[in-house]
Amino acid sequence: MENMRHIIEADQFDKTILEKVFMLTTELKGNFLEMAEKGKIKDLSMYSAQIINKEMVTLFYQPSTRTRASFEIAFQRMGGKVIFSTENAKEFSSAAKGETLEDTIRVICGYYPDVIVLRHYETGAAKIAVEVIQKNNFNVHIINAGDGIGEHPTQAILDLYTIRKYFGGIYNISIVMMGDLYNGRTVRSLSYLLAKCYKNIKIYFVSSPEVKMKDDIKNYLKENGVWFTETDDFVSAAREADVIYQTRVQKEWFGDRVDEYEKAKKNFTITFKIINEMKKEAIIMHPLPRNDEIPIYVDINHRAMYFRQAQNGLFVRMALFREIFS
Amino acid sequence: MENMRHIIEADQFDKTILEKVFMLTTELKGNFLEMAEKGKIKDLSMYSAQIINKEMVTLFYQPSTRTRASFEIAFQRMGGKVIFSTENAKEFSSAAKGETLEDTIRVICGYYPDVIVLRHYETGAAKIAVEVIQKNNFNVHIINAGDGIGEHPTQAILDLYTIRKYFGGIYNISIVMMGDLYNGRTVRSLSYLLAKCYKNIKIYFVSSPEVKMKDDIKNYLKENGVWFTETDDFVSAAREADVIYQTRVQKEWFGDRVDEYEKAKKNFTITFKIINEMKKEAIIMHPLPRNDEIPIYVDINHRAMYFRQAQNGLFVRMALFREIFS
Amino acid sequence: MENMRHIIEADQFDKTILEKVFMLTTELKGNFLEMAEKGKIKDLSMYSAQIINKEMVTLFYQPSTRTRASFEIAFQRMGGKVIFSTENAKEFSSAAKGETLEDTIRVICGYYPDVIVLRHYETGAAKIAVEVIQKNNFNVHIINAGDGIGEHPTQAILDLYTIRKYFGGIYNISIVMMGDLYNGRTVRSLSYLLAKCYKNIKIYFVSSPEVKMKDDIKNYLKENGVWFTETDDFVSAAREADVIYQTRVQKEWFGDRVDEYEKAKKNFTITFKIINEMKKEAIIMHPLPRNDEIPIYVDINHRAMYFRQAQNGLFVRMALFREIFS
Repeated sequence: MENMRHIIEADQFDKTILEKVFMLTTELKGNFLEMAEKGKIKDLSMYSAQIINKEMVTLFYQPSTRTRASFEIAFQRMGGKVIFSTENAKEFSSAAKGETLEDTIRVICGYYPDVIVLRHYETGAAKIAVEVIQKNNFNVHIINAGDGIGEHPTQAILDLYTIRKYFGGIYNISIVMMGDLYNGRTVRSLSYLLAKCYKNIKIYFVSSPEVKMKDDIKNYLKENGVWFTETDDFVSAAREADVIYQTRVQKEWFGDRVDEYEKAKKNFTITFKIINEMKKEAIIMHPLPRNDEIPIYVDINHRAMYFRQAQNGLFVRMALFREIFS
Repeated sequence: MENMRHIIEADQFDKTILEKVFMLTTELKGNFLEMAEKGKIKDLSMYSAQIINKEMVTLFYQPSTRTRASFEIAFQRMGGKVIFSTENAKEFSSAAKGETLEDTIRVICGYYPDVIVLRHYETGAAKIAVEVIQKNNFNVHIINAGDGIGEHPTQAILDLYTIRKYFGGIYNISIVMMGDLYNGRTVRSLSYLLAKCYKNIKIYFVSSPEVKMKDDIKNYLKENGVWFTETDDFVSAAREADVIYQTRVQKEWFGDRVDEYEKAKKNFTITFKIINEMKKEAIIMHPLPRNDEIPIYVDINHRAMYFRQAQNGLFVRMALFREIFS
Repeated sequence: MENMRHIIEADQFDKTILEKVFMLTTELKGNFLEMAEKGKIKDLSMYSAQIINKEMVTLFYQPSTRTRASFEIAFQRMGGKVIFSTENAKEFSSAAKGETLEDTIRVICGYYPDVIVLRHYETGAAKIAVEVIQKNNFNVHIINAGDGIGEHPTQAILDLYTIRKYFGGIYNISIVMMGDLYNGRTVRSLSYLLAKCYKNIKIYFVSSPEVKMKDDIKNYLKENGVWFTETDDFVSAAREADVIYQTRVQKEWFGDRVDEYEKAKKNFTITFKIINEMKKEAIIMHPLPRNDEIPIYVDINHRAMYFRQAQNGLFVRMALFREIFS
């Protein structure tokens, strides 16, 4: 099996690769936490000799403190160097002067970085970057850190890792996906990978009618024999769930219909009532940032897994760096 | 005496800690300047073994080139690493998507930095960050680099250091505090610490009636037997001063009353006339940035201490890093 | 010959210095590409012992991803450290509070960096920075990375390097300069240096009448016996050219006259027709970013030199760093 050169979309991953990445994640996480707890230098470069002194450029056309932080910190802890970082390239760069992404990537690659972590506001941006690299034979890896409403593959992988780690595997899992299913790239990628790689999965899509899951994913689930249903009955779905995967309800999709937005928000909030209806072992996930859809009183509940999920992002990204540099 | 874990507010400091920090500052400054002048590598890590390879995150929700520079440069020169830095997290991050500071701090702490230097637009932000850390048992230090109109403790400490260094001690000092005393966090913290830790201090509060010092500080001065007066007679106060601590007169507090603003600015500008009235050994300080309230012709006067004061910030912050990491 | 301390304007350079910088550039480029192609650590510090552990501050009051990246990456690969970097100091700093550039430079120099790379929106900013340094005896180098419509000397030098490298020398060269010649700092500096340092140069200035080359440069060319002409007949000029140096046609200069802007753009675009009329060995350059004035189908043509030109910027900046630190 060839190693991945770039990380662009969920589609690249199959179960074999995922399991390899997950094992590596667990190993790196374990080693790291041991170091951190003993107050040692948090340096994983002995587990990633191939990354030592490699050079990363972070090219964010759209801000994301959390995502940029986890990529930069992960890479540095494995021995790599962040040689250039830009926080908001859309506003702050030649993009404002009308330069295409192709030209920017070509110029930056001409400076010979080893990897570019790219976040862009347009769907398909990461693929375009890879095309530039292939056409010009650059020896640069691209990692998609989110492109428009397209993909954000490392998020889907850290989500899967969190489920797998908690349940000891991904089999026979019922998952409630909530919020803006129409636009949400995380719920889309997660549904896709669950259907592609895992068995005995049940999905409950819970949303307002305005923001239901699109047909492409639903058809893919059907083709792969994944049971799913669409409902606005959150309580009943919550009772069946091993995982409630909550996302934000985006106000802008309701336009003037403020009442409907408020109703949707209220209906799809995770309340004490919901928590009490959930199975004993069931967990609550969220890609963050969250607003009110998970009240803060949930945070201390043992089901609340979203901060651990965010932390797993650090270790999953470490493993993915090692994968592409192998 | 236990070492400080976090640096949040002026209130944490007493004379013993201050003197310890000041001695350390002088030692670090001396060692550094010797290196710099001999053209050696500017590396103070031999004086701060506990900081070597420690990891800092700079989380600025409000821009401040100068403050961020001094923290990042200080930390790196002592052997630490800046593993993530954000210039304007308010605009450029999940904060724009409605994430609370609590959630952001919790996620960032989950990436295991050793210290977060936080600047925020809301008063009390640094305390909130510490609460998150304590509640979740994170092993992370917080340094408040300014929170709204609340605190900016490292500024107050570098101000005190500058006075102490110049006069050989802080005793029998008359200080004129000028400008926006109502909102100015630097004059508030400086008054507080002078009253708390030092003896025979006299304070002249010189301001427009719109922006007088608040009662809380005035009451604290009374309780601690510090002589003070409030006046708009700058010239008379200047004659008595060992230190004139000038700050900006903020236009916005005068609303439509442009004439009054112009008058206030004129009355409280440090002119040649003022300089000539000052005592022989008296100095002029300013937290910077300044506008016209200190004309640039003052810069070459031997009394002008504000650039040295800014530089002292670098060394005071070094000493504070060593204090929290001890 | 004394080494340069600062890099402020094209005027500082003469042929001797340029040739020295170009030889060094070629050496560094060769060493680097060999390392990069063999997959070795891209570390040129063995060729720049004087830069190891030197400290750079990047102070950009105006965004420029490409320029900032090439300076920061160049400096780090030679063993230097970027100890502080700001992406948009105009908006994000005390500049917004009315601080002068002089004060900011004085404070930053007080933190003892070794070099400040400055980009500013006002013409003459870099000279002001040098004056602050000289007046205060700071041991800091300034590099002008563009100041308003003033200078951007490292761009002119990488342009010359690209011509010299391609033709094996700069002699007997006909160059067509296109686009906004009135405001374009690159065409101005390039014309100046060609006239000052090289022989048998012919220049064709091709532009709309609104944005013709200013008299100062034209007079300088006359004084130095450089043949030049001004024309809007692009096709005829292109036939004579060894180099077409294309730049952007700036819409804003045409105001309401949209038709004229569209006509100018169309007339001064590099089409297949133009390419076919060019001499066999002739090349096309552009300082980037580009819009439509060079269609992307030109990119695969062997004449297209603009991406290599951008890459040369990395190596020229390395050579200039070594020059100022020698």
